[in-house]
Amino acid sequence: MQATVGIIMGSDSDLPVMQEAAKILEELGIGYELTVVSAHRTPDRMYTYAKEAKGRGIKVIVAGAGGAAHLPGMVASLTGLPVIGVPVKTKSLSGVDSLYSIVQMPPGIPVATVAINGAKNAGLLAAQMLGAFQEDVHERVLAYKESLRTMVEGKAEELEA
Amino acid sequence: MQATVGIIMGSDSDLPVMQEAAKILEELGIGYELTVVSAHRTPDRMYTYAKEAKGRGIKVIVAGAGGAAHLPGMVASLTGLPVIGVPVKTKSLSGVDSLYSIVQMPPGIPVATVAINGAKNAGLLAAQMLGAFQEDVHERVLAYKESLRTMVEGKAEELEA
Amino acid sequence: MQATVGIIMGSDSDLPVMQEAAKILEELGIGYELTVVSAHRTPDRMYTYAKEAKGRGIKVIVAGAGGAAHLPGMVASLTGLPVIGVPVKTKSLSGVDSLYSIVQMPPGIPVATVAINGAKNAGLLAAQMLGAFQEDVHERVLAYKESLRTMVEGKAEELEA
Amino acid sequence: MQATVGIIMGSDSDLPVMQEAAKILEELGIGYELTVVSAHRTPDRMYTYAKEAKGRGIKVIVAGAGGAAHLPGMVASLTGLPVIGVPVKTKSLSGVDSLYSIVQMPPGIPVATVAINGAKNAGLLAAQMLGAFQEDVHERVLAYKESLRTMVEGKAEELEA
Amino acid sequence: MQATVGIIMGSDSDLPVMQEAAKILEELGIGYELTVVSAHRTPDRMYTYAKEAKGRGIKVIVAGAGGAAHLPGMVASLTGLPVIGVPVKTKSLSGVDSLYSIVQMPPGIPVATVAINGAKNAGLLAAQMLGAFQEDVHERVLAYKESLRTMVEGKAEELEA
Amino acid sequence: MQATVGIIMGSDSDLPVMQEAAKILEELGIGYELTVVSAHRTPDRMYTYAKEAKGRGIKVIVAGAGGAAHLPGMVASLTGLPVIGVPVKTKSLSGVDSLYSIVQMPPGIPVATVAINGAKNAGLLAAQMLGAFQEDVHERVLAYKESLRTMVEGKAEELEA
Amino acid sequence: MQATVGIIMGSDSDLPVMQEAAKILEELGIGYELTVVSAHRTPDRMYTYAKEAKGRGIKVIVAGAGGAAHLPGMVASLTGLPVIGVPVKTKSLSGVDSLYSIVQMPPGIPVATVAINGAKNAGLLAAQMLGAFQEDVHERVLAYKESLRTMVEGKAEELEA
Amino acid sequence: MQATVGIIMGSDSDLPVMQEAAKILEELGIGYELTVVSAHRTPDRMYTYAKEAKGRGIKVIVAGAGGAAHLPGMVASLTGLPVIGVPVKTKSLSGVDSLYSIVQMPPGIPVATVAINGAKNAGLLAAQMLGAFQEDVHERVLAYKESLRTMVEGKAEELEA
Repeated sequence: MQATVGIIMGSDSDLPVMQEAAKILEELGIGYELTVVSAHRTPDRMYTYAKEAKGRGIKVIVAGAGGAAHLPGMVASLTGLPVIGVPVKTKSLSGVDSLYSIVQMPPGIPVATVAINGAKNAGLLAAQMLGAFQEDVHERVLAYKESLRTMVEGKAEELEA
Repeated sequence: MQATVGIIMGSDSDLPVMQEAAKILEELGIGYELTVVSAHRTPDRMYTYAKEAKGRGIKVIVAGAGGAAHLPGMVASLTGLPVIGVPVKTKSLSGVDSLYSIVQMPPGIPVATVAINGAKNAGLLAAQMLGAFQEDVHERVLAYKESLRTMVEGKAEELEA
Repeated sequence: MQATVGIIMGSDSDLPVMQEAAKILEELGIGYELTVVSAHRTPDRMYTYAKEAKGRGIKVIVAGAGGAAHLPGMVASLTGLPVIGVPVKTKSLSGVDSLYSIVQMPPGIPVATVAINGAKNAGLLAAQMLGAFQEDVHERVLAYKESLRTMVEGKAEELEA
Repeated sequence: MQATVGIIMGSDSDLPVMQEAAKILEELGIGYELTVVSAHRTPDRMYTYAKEAKGRGIKVIVAGAGGAAHLPGMVASLTGLPVIGVPVKTKSLSGVDSLYSIVQMPPGIPVATVAINGAKNAGLLAAQMLGAFQEDVHERVLAYKESLRTMVEGKAEELEA
Repeated sequence: MQATVGIIMGSDSDLPVMQEAAKILEELGIGYELTVVSAHRTPDRMYTYAKEAKGRGIKVIVAGAGGAAHLPGMVASLTGLPVIGVPVKTKSLSGVDSLYSIVQMPPGIPVATVAINGAKNAGLLAAQMLGAFQEDVHERVLAYKESLRTMVEGKAEELEA
Repeated sequence: MQATVGIIMGSDSDLPVMQEAAKILEELGIGYELTVVSAHRTPDRMYTYAKEAKGRGIKVIVAGAGGAAHLPGMVASLTGLPVIGVPVKTKSLSGVDSLYSIVQMPPGIPVATVAINGAKNAGLLAAQMLGAFQEDVHERVLAYKESLRTMVEGKAEELEA
Repeated sequence: MQATVGIIMGSDSDLPVMQEAAKILEELGIGYELTVVSAHRTPDRMYTYAKEAKGRGIKVIVAGAGGAAHLPGMVASLTGLPVIGVPVKTKSLSGVDSLYSIVQMPPGIPVATVAINGAKNAGLLAAQMLGAFQEDVHERVLAYKESLRTMVEGKAEELEA
Repeated sequence: MQATVGIIMGSDSDLPVMQEAAKILEELGIGYELTVVSAHRTPDRMYTYAKEAKGRGIKVIVAGAGGAAHLPGMVASLTGLPVIGVPVKTKSLSGVDSLYSIVQMPPGIPVATVAINGAKNAGLLAAQMLGAFQEDVHERVLAYKESLRTMVEGKAEELEA
């Protein structure tokens, strides 16, 4: 399957968080690629990744990072594709540092930020962006949301029983 | 011009902030609609808006709100389209309340959050989502980013002179 | 016993917190109902719940939610009954996100917010609202407060001994 | 008109904030009394106020205070009536101190907390508590909410025109 | 030994924290009394305690409390003696709530606040207040500080060895 | 009049805040000295000040500072006298930096911290410490508190009229 | 004079803050260069700047930026020279966002962070780094610190007079 | 090997954090000394340390401390050498107190602050300062950064495989 979503993270220690993005994309039948790209330790690699993504057919980039989290914003500065940022929870500041570093971008370079450790939602948001133009993806997003509704109602029934 | 971006806000007092989204979309030649929809004061109107947006050709919704900012998240729960949330700055908590209320969405219902008062970036992000599928929009986004580069370099020259 | 307090929560994972509300109501001999209603995953169910509560004899609604906690505020927008909000503690932001999302409601739509994870107090507050009009409930609230006094004094005696 | 809501504040400098509670109660045709009671400067007066309120026919107490805001919680400890707390905005901490001092009450002594400077909502919340038992008040609350809806829709129309 | 320092706490669950104050006072040979006094659950007991402390020979009161921590401030409002407040660490807000509730007192009613869970320092501070007038206590405080110096220097030597 | 309270501040820009301490001491008939001592710019002067204060008859030191506010804690490390710290409000962090730098002292070196910009209370607290041993000062403190009570009651009467 | 310190900032709107760095360097007789380099708007320019600085004789880089402030950290990732970061104050988050984005760098890529808007100290810190190897610069740094001491003592004398 | 970096910490409980600075310096072949110096418990020792460091050949001081962390700033006030501050994580405030106490220094006395618990980066930053004048150290810093790049690329390859 052709990858249309690129998932990157600043360190492989972010993998347990970030693979939730991969998992939901798989569940929704969307092709993705996943790798480690560090803004600070591999700046050249980051440049290349950001500059070449569109040419490879990528339509959305999901980037996760923690602390002084520069990866999502720097990738956003190097591409015209939409970039979704996942603030990874940190030990001392619980991810507030990651959140502020990702969401408070200056005018001209937006990053679509999701919740701290919200990689699953990042994947889903990528799917929704694709779904705005690919009706089959949109249908699968709606079906997924419907399944959430059913699950909650099931639990409500149990609880009320 | 057919509106493909829907801009809504919780109160008309958010207009000075939110019209920045409209302005950049205009600059990029993208059709949009703009109105007031309050999650708390007009919940039925919000339901209708969210449910009917896609049918009207809307591909991305930009929603701004302040304080206990429920509009972006509630609209996201009612549509399969991507929703961009703009946390509007507040008097006592400077928009940290708006930011947390918008970005910390539960798994299953993402909101693409931008900076506090970052409506311009919300518009630009919407354009980038469209641009992933509409090559002409993508080109205009790149040209806009190029203009930012030129502007910064001009200022650098002045300063160095 | 006729339910006069409705206890709802955004997810069944909130149950360990929210059942404290049920427990104190039971202790005070007040009828209640308890179920799961998710603002984001079951918006229609939430509408119905909020619109029909009063007709069923409910006089106060206690709503608990965490993160971008929209349930209490949205229910408050859909009913004229008083709504008590319980901010549930979250993993990354310890419930500050929940607190701000619940307490910072805009003019016109109040939510009576209690402490983070303060479900017991939510139940007690509901009882106090009823007690303002039902003298027997008021008496039981006073007796409960009296029992707290006795307990503290007992501990003081032990400590001083 | 018989006062059923008691509005108190820690200092007369809180009056510009707290009179919003009085104003909305007037608008809704609900009798109220309003005075200054300081937990720290007039503790005896506070005791008397809290102990005698119910006997005077008061059914809800609205208490506003800023900084180390002890008034709402101390009054709540001295009465079985529901107490609504209004965290007043402060100069250095913007009311976060007031908010935490009011909302984080220990088990057994709830305070129904509203937004920072949210006195209008405090008044409205008091009305909703009364309305749960007084149908005419409930009707007026609903009419007020309806007027908010109409106002928003009017602004939406203007904006869309 | 005549008690000159009164140690009180809002709940016996604060004892593990607050007994550090007792321990250092013992170490410095200063008489103290220790008990539970809850501002919210035993307001009358608190009144009596604060009003009678001076008559019993108490010269400083150390009061510990957590969350909406009203005990130190309320006791300070009821006595002319200096009151030292110990913000007890809390589960959701780590004691920031306790700190703000204790330190942000209004003009006229100071509370001498120490670090979160800083009961040892509260005891020491009480000793320093006494020491300003009782030379033998002052000497013991200096000797204690000298012992800290020696201990640090011992550790430095070990580390450098 | 013999100075028994020493008021120091890190910079003369803190004077508008810190003179409130002097004013209340004057009002209470307590002798004080006031000067500028910077922990960072005049460390030697600070050493001398702290070491010699007691010999001059000083019984309490009030120290105000902003930002990385080291003056109160460093003075406390150099004397056995009680030190009261006043966190001065700052431009970017509103005094939260000052507060944390002053209140979070390690075991062994307490600083009696008052509210941000709470210099008046610092003066009053110093008076209360003196009053624990000087009955006339204690009486004047009580009279001052009584005057606050009267003032609040006067305002209450006006408001109720 | 040969520039040994490079001062850069993310936007020319940071100039009023950042020129304090230039001013103190001038005062200390240290050559510097100053320009605008935006991590987000001119990423290529930033690469070139960081890669070529050492070759031009630069020994320390001072970089100021606000919000999601990526400039200092990204430059640090591209050079082996020490980088000093100045968090510029922002409108909604007062520079806490800038501070966290600059100081919370991951292991391997340090940024020497100074106070919010602390550009003067950034310049001084650069001078101190040079001074560790250039005795004349060290002497001028000491003379500057001495002048601060004299100034404070002069103010103390005035105040005490 | 001649020590050119001095590593100090406020308490030996900071050693597990601070030895990361020593470790990286060793790895880079840079001589260092390491000991305990407490601003609060051994102020005289701190004076001596700061005043004599340069004479011993020290070119940079790395100082770690937690809570009201005065060590880095006080040392900086007593020497003309650059001082790097490491905010040590604390139990109640997670090191935000340490960070603010270290980074928010007043004009004239900079401290080069790194991340909370960022001792490794403090060591590396010291090396970079030396490297600006010692070409061999600079080369080893670049080699270290290169090794980080290689490591990340290795992990990327594994992940992509």
